[in-house]
Amino acid sequence: MINFQTSPERYQHWKLEISGAVATLSMDVQEDQTLAEGYKLKLNSYDLGVDIELADAIQRLRFEHPEVAAVVITSLKPRIFCAGANIYMLGSSSHAFKVNFCKFTNETRCAIEDDSRHSGRRYVAALNGTASGGGYELAIACDEIYLVDDGNSAVSLPEVPLLGVLPGTGGLTRLVDKRKVRRDRADVFSTLAEGLKGKRAKEWGLIDGYFATSKFGQGISARVEEIVAAQSTHRSPSELNKSRISLTSLQVTETDDSRNYRYIRVQLHRDQRYADLTMRGPEGAQPTTPEEIHELGDAYWPLQAYRELDDALLYLRVNEPEIGLVCLRTEGSIDSVLAIDETLAANRDHWLVREIILNMARVLRRLDLTAKSFFAIVEPGSCFAGNLLELLLASDRSYMLVDDNNSIAPSELNAGAFPMSNGLTRLQSRFLAEPERVDQVLDQKRFDTEEAEEIGLITFAPDDLDWEDEIRVAIEERTSLSPDALTGMEASLRFAGPETLDTKIYGRLTAWQNWIFQRPNAVGPQGALTNYGKPTQAHFDFKRT
Amino acid sequence: MINFQTSPERYQHWKLEISGAVATLSMDVQEDQTLAEGYKLKLNSYDLGVDIELADAIQRLRFEHPEVAAVVITSLKPRIFCAGANIYMLGSSSHAFKVNFCKFTNETRCAIEDDSRHSGRRYVAALNGTASGGGYELAIACDEIYLVDDGNSAVSLPEVPLLGVLPGTGGLTRLVDKRKVRRDRADVFSTLAEGLKGKRAKEWGLIDGYFATSKFGQGISARVEEIVAAQSTHRSPSELNKSRISLTSLQVTETDDSRNYRYIRVQLHRDQRYADLTMRGPEGAQPTTPEEIHELGDAYWPLQAYRELDDALLYLRVNEPEIGLVCLRTEGSIDSVLAIDETLAANRDHWLVREIILNMARVLRRLDLTAKSFFAIVEPGSCFAGNLLELLLASDRSYMLVDDNNSIAPSELNAGAFPMSNGLTRLQSRFLAEPERVDQVLDQKRFDTEEAEEIGLITFAPDDLDWEDEIRVAIEERTSLSPDALTGMEASLRFAGPETLDTKIYGRLTAWQNWIFQRPNAVGPQGALTNYGKPTQAHFDFKRT
Repeated sequence: MINFQTSPERYQHWKLEISGAVATLSMDVQEDQTLAEGYKLKLNSYDLGVDIELADAIQRLRFEHPEVAAVVITSLKPRIFCAGANIYMLGSSSHAFKVNFCKFTNETRCAIEDDSRHSGRRYVAALNGTASGGGYELAIACDEIYLVDDGNSAVSLPEVPLLGVLPGTGGLTRLVDKRKVRRDRADVFSTLAEGLKGKRAKEWGLIDGYFATSKFGQGISARVEEIVAAQSTHRSPSELNKSRISLTSLQVTETDDSRNYRYIRVQLHRDQRYADLTMRGPEGAQPTTPEEIHELGDAYWPLQAYRELDDALLYLRVNEPEIGLVCLRTEGSIDSVLAIDETLAANRDHWLVREIILNMARVLRRLDLTAKSFFAIVEPGSCFAGNLLELLLASDRSYMLVDDNNSIAPSELNAGAFPMSNGLTRLQSRFLAEPERVDQVLDQKRFDTEEAEEIGLITFAPDDLDWEDEIRVAIEERTSLSPDALTGMEASLRFAGPETLDTKIYGRLTAWQNWIFQRPNAVGPQGALTNYGKPTQAHFDFKRT
Repeated sequence: MINFQTSPERYQHWKLEISGAVATLSMDVQEDQTLAEGYKLKLNSYDLGVDIELADAIQRLRFEHPEVAAVVITSLKPRIFCAGANIYMLGSSSHAFKVNFCKFTNETRCAIEDDSRHSGRRYVAALNGTASGGGYELAIACDEIYLVDDGNSAVSLPEVPLLGVLPGTGGLTRLVDKRKVRRDRADVFSTLAEGLKGKRAKEWGLIDGYFATSKFGQGISARVEEIVAAQSTHRSPSELNKSRISLTSLQVTETDDSRNYRYIRVQLHRDQRYADLTMRGPEGAQPTTPEEIHELGDAYWPLQAYRELDDALLYLRVNEPEIGLVCLRTEGSIDSVLAIDETLAANRDHWLVREIILNMARVLRRLDLTAKSFFAIVEPGSCFAGNLLELLLASDRSYMLVDDNNSIAPSELNAGAFPMSNGLTRLQSRFLAEPERVDQVLDQKRFDTEEAEEIGLITFAPDDLDWEDEIRVAIEERTSLSPDALTGMEASLRFAGPETLDTKIYGRLTAWQNWIFQRPNAVGPQGALTNYGKPTQAHFDFKRT
């Protein structure tokens, strides 16, 4: 079982150092500390274990080190920044694992950009040596990239020429869409195994600057100082410092067929290939001021429950591949959930509250991007309200029992606090054809089943007589379908409307990479990925498709 | 060899009837008239041969029947409109053929929408019986859809539940993005093999209306009359009638390793897996008025040369799969090409000139969407000017010899006449990072090699000493790379910037479909596509990926 929980004192591959407003995240991959057998993580190449630590570090920076204004990502290995995803790990992994690995690493890079965009922390890639493949893809997820000019170090995307696969961790998309590298130059760069060094890399827009070896540290420091100075007008480090909180380890109790957190319960029905995921609402008195929230720290419901949801989703993705359907359920008081949303909305300008909301948004996007079907099941006693209404809106379909005691409710937070990858709210995505319904929904306090069906918030509204049969049949039908066709279908239907860098990465680039990851030219006995580093050579079927 | 040339008198599967301002395109597929062995085209199911006729009919409507304001697409078979792409054809086709087949059928459907958007012809799908799979996908490419309400006929997308593949001919994308069907309803509809009938189909936005059997013909006629009446304020049928032109068959001379049209020469270097495609500019006196253009008809250079280019591209896609690289060359006078563009620009409001320009734009988009690498080779005597400059801008990279007699030139038409699928011009796509360069390019008359390199119009500018070696090495390198990785890379790098319905179809949906088209769950011995219609059942590997 792969565990996604870690913390800095357990990191094997990264060092996180904080000095005033500057964090330095240094990569120093221990080549023998791999997640699986059969490969060594040479040259700061990475596997999922390395990226789990990186994701954790970025997450902690936001909650535990709010004073940090600039994050330097660099390497402790001489002359090498990062060689990207480990080829032998990829070559020996199943297709499903490769796909999940790439998705998680993509989410980590998008989390860097989310921090930059919404929390204003600037990420600086300090490339003290060559950044190739996923190494350069990590760099272009940062705001600025500086390369050492030592006559040798380069940035490169050698996947196409060396491995017959794509720079699929956002590389191709960020090249032309984020850094806006001219498409013919991007074409040359992406087919040039050795990559480009300082001067030309700068000219082509691949990096933002370069420094001679002797001036590298100083050059980076000077730039980081500028960044911090520019940020300091917005922040008061001493005040931020006082209010940071700690993210403690999540407590999980496991049985053969369940996984229980404080607020999340996952019940696995492996024979039937589905799971029930029940999220419990807040209980008892809840804080209403930033001070009270700070005091509760990571035990505050919106933070703890969504951290647990995140972990449960990652667990299901990687460790339960045959579970194809998740029935999302909630338990608790609608009023309590709405009270939480009211507090969050009223204090959204406070850094901690903002971070809590942004984290909820990221977890909900992780749900959107999970290759499993989701059905929301709405019964009396459930609390699909406000932030938890997003679970229903994120679902592929929803079933709501006709019952006088059954209702759902929107809150102010459904109006924009939790954008999808396409930049729209889930209500906007839902009502593309009738945008006026978004405000109609937001204007009404509660919806009973009939009202919810009428306005279009739910898919089906069976009555008591049909309820159990209808849910049972729906589950049976869904889990009988081709899992691949469902993945492709859901990836197409969930993200109507505009496209963004993120949706391009998860839709277009990832779909092409997944295609290539199955092609004999990559993974067959004569494929490039299979034969990399071996005395044998790749042999291609040259038919263009 | 598959031939893309046809004409109405040779149609086997469609009847094209014109009555005043209304064209009726009736599908009546002859089940034995297949393009390959091993399947019968029952229930108006189609193979590539059927779609080649449809594409031809839509193209001819624009040039040969400009008086037509409404096109009714219907079927001559009782109780069945169209059952979609033939499953047995798909099941017995190679992966490469499936992909090319889907791309062409997608382009045909986009051509319907192009006609509607730019030439104002309205397409009405008159579903006199069930439209399933590709049959419904043809319908949603139309502007309006009407279904017979006979208690039996339905619209459906049964690909996911029955075949384990996607409705990949734009179906999923058009469902949520064009018709803006609510995503949960789209989910239900796309997993419901039997589909939905009149009332509910209308309620969910899948169709625009339904008529009882006895009133179907009359209902369609009445709606078509309304459309024609609304259009007639913009058109003068009698005048349009006079000026229509005929599209005659293209003349091609073939040898073992070449394909020669009047203005296009394709030289195949099969051993080296590349082709030279040379496009010759106009020669001699050219018309300057709509009347003169009309007199020349389809012999007018911009129409003939681009029709030839279209045919050459389709030939290369389907019949020369191992040719991975096309070197685009031009021959002729820059001034003559610019004179053509001047005439086209001056007369763009005339229907025939508009259609000629729109056709050029479609052919250039076909080039953008071709899964082969393109290098533009610019030498003295070439004429990469105006519309032909688009060939260079569409290329993955370009090489321009340093020579006093070598130049390239923009024209007014590069400013918007030939939009890419992403809605941008090729100059805008090229200069995303420096949009001001677009106008700088358009403001200058000529660019010698140095100027072209300086402003960023070309990729490489070798001098005489390096020229031959550099081109030779570039060709060798390109054709040595994994063809799959190149396809995925080019599909990602060519379409930076905004996304549209079209780019979503060709990027996101197609990439997922291509992935699924190789998965054992679809095409393996136990796959759903393989076992469709057989006594054996599909068995899935239920791991979700």
